[in-house]
Amino acid sequence: MTVRFELLHADRDTGARRGRLHTPHGVVETPVFMPVGTAGSVKAVGPDELRELGAQIILGNTYHLMLRPGEGLVRELGGLHRFICWDRAMLTDSGGFQVFSLSEKRNITEEGATFQSHLDGSRHLLTPERSVEIQEALGADVIMAFDECPPSLAERAYLEASLARTTRWLQRCARAWSRGASSLFGIVQGGLHEDLRRRHAEEVCSVDLPGYALGGYSVGESPEAMHQSVAFSAPLLPREKPRYLMGVGTPKDLVTCVAAGVDMFDCVLPTRCARNGLLFTSQGRVTIKNAAHARDPGPLDPACACYTCRTFSRAYLRHLFVAKEILAMRLNTIHNLAFFLGLMRRAREAIERDEYRSFASSLGPALGGEVG
Amino acid sequence: MTVRFELLHADRDTGARRGRLHTPHGVVETPVFMPVGTAGSVKAVGPDELRELGAQIILGNTYHLMLRPGEGLVRELGGLHRFICWDRAMLTDSGGFQVFSLSEKRNITEEGATFQSHLDGSRHLLTPERSVEIQEALGADVIMAFDECPPSLAERAYLEASLARTTRWLQRCARAWSRGASSLFGIVQGGLHEDLRRRHAEEVCSVDLPGYALGGYSVGESPEAMHQSVAFSAPLLPREKPRYLMGVGTPKDLVTCVAAGVDMFDCVLPTRCARNGLLFTSQGRVTIKNAAHARDPGPLDPACACYTCRTFSRAYLRHLFVAKEILAMRLNTIHNLAFFLGLMRRAREAIERDEYRSFASSLGPALGGEVG
Repeated sequence: MTVRFELLHADRDTGARRGRLHTPHGVVETPVFMPVGTAGSVKAVGPDELRELGAQIILGNTYHLMLRPGEGLVRELGGLHRFICWDRAMLTDSGGFQVFSLSEKRNITEEGATFQSHLDGSRHLLTPERSVEIQEALGADVIMAFDECPPSLAERAYLEASLARTTRWLQRCARAWSRGASSLFGIVQGGLHEDLRRRHAEEVCSVDLPGYALGGYSVGESPEAMHQSVAFSAPLLPREKPRYLMGVGTPKDLVTCVAAGVDMFDCVLPTRCARNGLLFTSQGRVTIKNAAHARDPGPLDPACACYTCRTFSRAYLRHLFVAKEILAMRLNTIHNLAFFLGLMRRAREAIERDEYRSFASSLGPALGGEVG
Repeated sequence: MTVRFELLHADRDTGARRGRLHTPHGVVETPVFMPVGTAGSVKAVGPDELRELGAQIILGNTYHLMLRPGEGLVRELGGLHRFICWDRAMLTDSGGFQVFSLSEKRNITEEGATFQSHLDGSRHLLTPERSVEIQEALGADVIMAFDECPPSLAERAYLEASLARTTRWLQRCARAWSRGASSLFGIVQGGLHEDLRRRHAEEVCSVDLPGYALGGYSVGESPEAMHQSVAFSAPLLPREKPRYLMGVGTPKDLVTCVAAGVDMFDCVLPTRCARNGLLFTSQGRVTIKNAAHARDPGPLDPACACYTCRTFSRAYLRHLFVAKEILAMRLNTIHNLAFFLGLMRRAREAIERDEYRSFASSLGPALGGEVG
């Protein structure tokens, strides 16, 4: 069974959509934010905490998992869900993005990409067929087509050649895909060029797949340019299929791109920032190491009901972070994920009430900058 | 109110005792193992998990807390219990041990010890009066006398002078102690010399205090020499008061020293080993990074009911550790603490049934060495 998308409601004033993605591991209410569990763990939290936070679907990275522990081992142990003890939905990327961003001495040909592992220097070949094979071995509910992921600011000529190859790779992915429990999504590239996005969307969407993604953002362009491009590109994807904006983004990005009609998001931002002590709150961003928090007995965010905010003071959170206690990573991650997941829950409720526009404009400081 | 010790039962065949320490933060069933929360956090786990593990009392380190965040800040925020959100019993050490083991350029005089912070090089003076003052500001249920902590293998002449000073410091601690919510325990030193332990026990126990400790072990001597000395020294402490063996030890040390009549233990061993991937199980010690565990779908310890063993496979625990995931630290720590706390729970039950000797000899591999 492939995933099935149910479009429940379209917001009256914006492009925002309220949907439901039916997967072999449960229903995902959209719009949804997907925490990133790169190497089989959403860093610093466990599956129990993710469930309590209301995470409906998490990501795994094919590049990391193929290198360690290896997809063969994961399959032998019953697949990624069982291996990491996560019984809700899961999505894996194709490995392409990391080949281009993490590995050394990569070489791209029509066949695929050869690269050296960032872990031990061993050489690997990733092709469209191999990426699909690995992802099906991992057993995620949604798997992604293997694409080249050029920077959104790449030269037009480079982009055009890259897009043509990504289309050919997509066709190879679609042929390799077993149409089993893992559902293949295609990826539309094209940088900030509207004509390229349009042309590539037509090529990608001509392959009948359970869902489609927009790739290649958040790698250099300004937020405004990205928002504008997503507003143009999202409606190019089929209305009745889920739309996934890869690797995005900040709370403001999420709220803006939901209005453009995006249903799914993933980003390391909340978890990575948490580990660096940058916390998202209803009043703006908080740098927890700042001395201003040293004697503050209040919660990090009085508007937040997460375990961290229910239990601990800013003073203690600051102490844990300054003392480099491992607990700081966990408590900060719980809060930032609660913030991102809560934001999307409220977005879903606002769409249901046809109030998305007023919801988005009411957020104010929660989407804003540093408060201390 | 000072803590009150209730001696419930003495084992028929050994010196093991079943007791109950009544504290302002609840009852502690003894013999008890106390997890160490050096800087206001038992590393890698939260207070919720410690409660679920059945931890009854945890330690804080005065040396670390006086330097960061400072006892003034902790007092201002309602004391250590409130600061770290731990509502069960707590014990702080005097800072003496760390002054001698962690700080630089220390200088010991009759007045006390001056030292440079290992964090920022700032100079501090710790005296018996100041140690008690800091510990009372932190607000632990049990506070420890400020002593010099010479290695158990120190020269006899050095030891004798040190013991005499520690006795004078104890008398100053007792005078400085407010007899409020924090109960002062005295510490008997003397290395491996039975006559010195006897003489110092007489001196220390002549000061009427709610409890007494044996200090200066586990800093170089063999386990057998330590066990022999503890077997000699523990009975020198008053029968009706709690006996605390500081900084000890391995599962075998605990089981052996309970038989000598020790009621309280603390050690960083389970938490530190957990972070290094060394796990204590009913079958012996497991080095989780070993390749033998890579494809093992079974639990770390089939005899253990902790969250880690209930939920995850050895294969996943190995993967998390090898991938340096933060979650590895937490899951390993949960298990090792469950092992130590469970061992003491079973020890208490065995004493109640007058079966401590057969319990101790039945443990076999759980007290033993490496199994893989």
